[in-house]
Amino acid sequence: MNDFRFYNPVRIHFGREAMAQLPEELAGVGKKILLVYGGGSIKASGLYDRVLAALREAGKDVVELPGVMPNPRTEKVYEGIDLCKTHGVDFILAVGGGSVIDCAKAIAVGARTDRDFWQAFFVNWEEAEDAIPLGTILTIPATGSEMDRSSVITNWATGEKNGYDSDLTYPAFSILDPTLTYTLPKHQMVNGVVDTLSHIWELYFSEPDTESVTDALAEALMRSVISATRTALKDPTDYVARANIMWASTFALCGMLNNGKKTDWASHNIEHPLSAVFDVAHGAGLAVVHPNYMKYFCSYAPERYARYAVQVWGVDPAGKTTLAVAQEGIQRTRDFFNEIGAPATLTDLGIPESAIEDLAARTDLSCWAYRELTREDVKAILGMCL
Amino acid sequence: MNDFRFYNPVRIHFGREAMAQLPEELAGVGKKILLVYGGGSIKASGLYDRVLAALREAGKDVVELPGVMPNPRTEKVYEGIDLCKTHGVDFILAVGGGSVIDCAKAIAVGARTDRDFWQAFFVNWEEAEDAIPLGTILTIPATGSEMDRSSVITNWATGEKNGYDSDLTYPAFSILDPTLTYTLPKHQMVNGVVDTLSHIWELYFSEPDTESVTDALAEALMRSVISATRTALKDPTDYVARANIMWASTFALCGMLNNGKKTDWASHNIEHPLSAVFDVAHGAGLAVVHPNYMKYFCSYAPERYARYAVQVWGVDPAGKTTLAVAQEGIQRTRDFFNEIGAPATLTDLGIPESAIEDLAARTDLSCWAYRELTREDVKAILGMCL
Repeated sequence: MNDFRFYNPVRIHFGREAMAQLPEELAGVGKKILLVYGGGSIKASGLYDRVLAALREAGKDVVELPGVMPNPRTEKVYEGIDLCKTHGVDFILAVGGGSVIDCAKAIAVGARTDRDFWQAFFVNWEEAEDAIPLGTILTIPATGSEMDRSSVITNWATGEKNGYDSDLTYPAFSILDPTLTYTLPKHQMVNGVVDTLSHIWELYFSEPDTESVTDALAEALMRSVISATRTALKDPTDYVARANIMWASTFALCGMLNNGKKTDWASHNIEHPLSAVFDVAHGAGLAVVHPNYMKYFCSYAPERYARYAVQVWGVDPAGKTTLAVAQEGIQRTRDFFNEIGAPATLTDLGIPESAIEDLAARTDLSCWAYRELTREDVKAILGMCL
Repeated sequence: MNDFRFYNPVRIHFGREAMAQLPEELAGVGKKILLVYGGGSIKASGLYDRVLAALREAGKDVVELPGVMPNPRTEKVYEGIDLCKTHGVDFILAVGGGSVIDCAKAIAVGARTDRDFWQAFFVNWEEAEDAIPLGTILTIPATGSEMDRSSVITNWATGEKNGYDSDLTYPAFSILDPTLTYTLPKHQMVNGVVDTLSHIWELYFSEPDTESVTDALAEALMRSVISATRTALKDPTDYVARANIMWASTFALCGMLNNGKKTDWASHNIEHPLSAVFDVAHGAGLAVVHPNYMKYFCSYAPERYARYAVQVWGVDPAGKTTLAVAQEGIQRTRDFFNEIGAPATLTDLGIPESAIEDLAARTDLSCWAYRELTREDVKAILGMCL
């Protein structure tokens, strides 16, 4: 187990009545609120009206930033920063999924500096000195952004999708009501599940592989996600299944599964150019990339992949080589993705073979586990995705 | 899954080099420090000298409160409160196990009020308005106090052992170096493991029993603790085993295993008078009480106890009734306690049968799971402990 630091100060309000905590949370923040959200779904569901009523009831002045898109872009962040500076915003309330929350986080640090947010934080990784505090109301379980310190923003002009981390961008609070996910379109739910599993893999498949509490927790979480997904696909209003998916996706990135692990993140980095260039949904891109990444790299950590096969998929190891067990676990992973309707190939994503060279050239190679990642590896993995 | 709130702002520094974070943590706190610790073990190990050197290096004025005993008592808390008020203490540093940390927490709230700490907080559960911030350096994995908001104090005069919870008594930071536990006497290590497992059971064996992420995490943690304990008993300097025990004991009570659960705490409440009247080590008392509590109550939640038997102990359920599987899991629990040398009976603890009536009369009946706890239940359970 590597040495680690764990710190996560987010207040989570979880459950059917979680929204009832909003007034108390709002009572503790400033008067001028930036309300950040995406498209029409929160208006259709009535959530927008509930939030606005709570804000009015709390006597807040509200400035709105609607229209945050999946793979949230620099333009939207600049728009939010301008609004914050013009109106003297005290607090940001993000209502939506990871894209909305990530956009809100970038605005939070960008609005409290004279530096260009993209260059300073997302390119140069300079330290932020201040941030507008923020809270979230989650509608799509996937990115874990509601309980982490990370934000990922896409620069459409340069074709870059970069991340930034700061203790200043932990939400002060996050409201997680699983019933808000009952009406999620199936592909969004599936993308969210893929993203959640991918996060767990990025942490679990990395050194050290000595027996650890962290790995045991990760395996428990994976089994829960797989089981709850099957239930929720059959009955989208199964509360317990929805609650398990929501809490698992949040827990996956709250930091507890990083503890003692090197962590990987190569699959995420290989996926980022797919989103940045082709505007592919992050979870859809991961569904294609991650199983192929596993296949490509499993021979460098066969015991770990075999353990995954046995512990998560119940593969019977009797009479098989370690590598064969490992490969069976990866096949079961792919089968599960097929079963839930996740995309399998670059073709499914509308990405042509001719793009591979460019996508590989854009891939950040700095993160890896077990063996250093090269550009040739990325090309080979993307080739397997065809 | 019940609705829940999760909040835990403790900064954890974990690992072989965790102590290296102490100077940075000390840089952020006031000048006048109360150093709270127990007996001679931190002096014998050299830890006391390391801590004092760091405090001197940071330019702090140090007031010492040594001699905190297991089952920390009101007298020691009053002594600490006096020191804080006399010297204008800005920050409390607790170096030791749960007793030392609990004592420090009680001092932290008691020193910032004119009310009597015992009556106000530990009897009447009034809200604390302020607390001296505190940090901890953990030497005994057991109580989870290093990452929770609870404190348990014994009033020797009245024979009461009561708890108090407040967001104000979360440590600001806790330093967890597993190598500090290499020299723990075996009985202290075993008591700590029993306490850790007992904490997990208090949360796991409670409604609702619907499939949940929280239960899956609890089962993973139990398996890890059992496996790491066996390894550490064979080789007390096995770093990974010691690290797993330490992190599991902290994780068990950080709040993550409460999420969505009613929680029980009856076994803890039945044990408290044993400690308060006979000064029995908390973990030793739990080793006697908790398996008998399980035996007594398992028929009210046979499916849950059977699940525990299968998931944690690998009991084969084939051809057995649910209750028989449940009972086999409890027997395996008792067998494990015997294997690691934990006490099994009140006699082992030096408690006579004649004390049962009084111990039962002193038991707080307010906490339970599955079925309300009565005084007759407590007498019956203590009778099974003979």
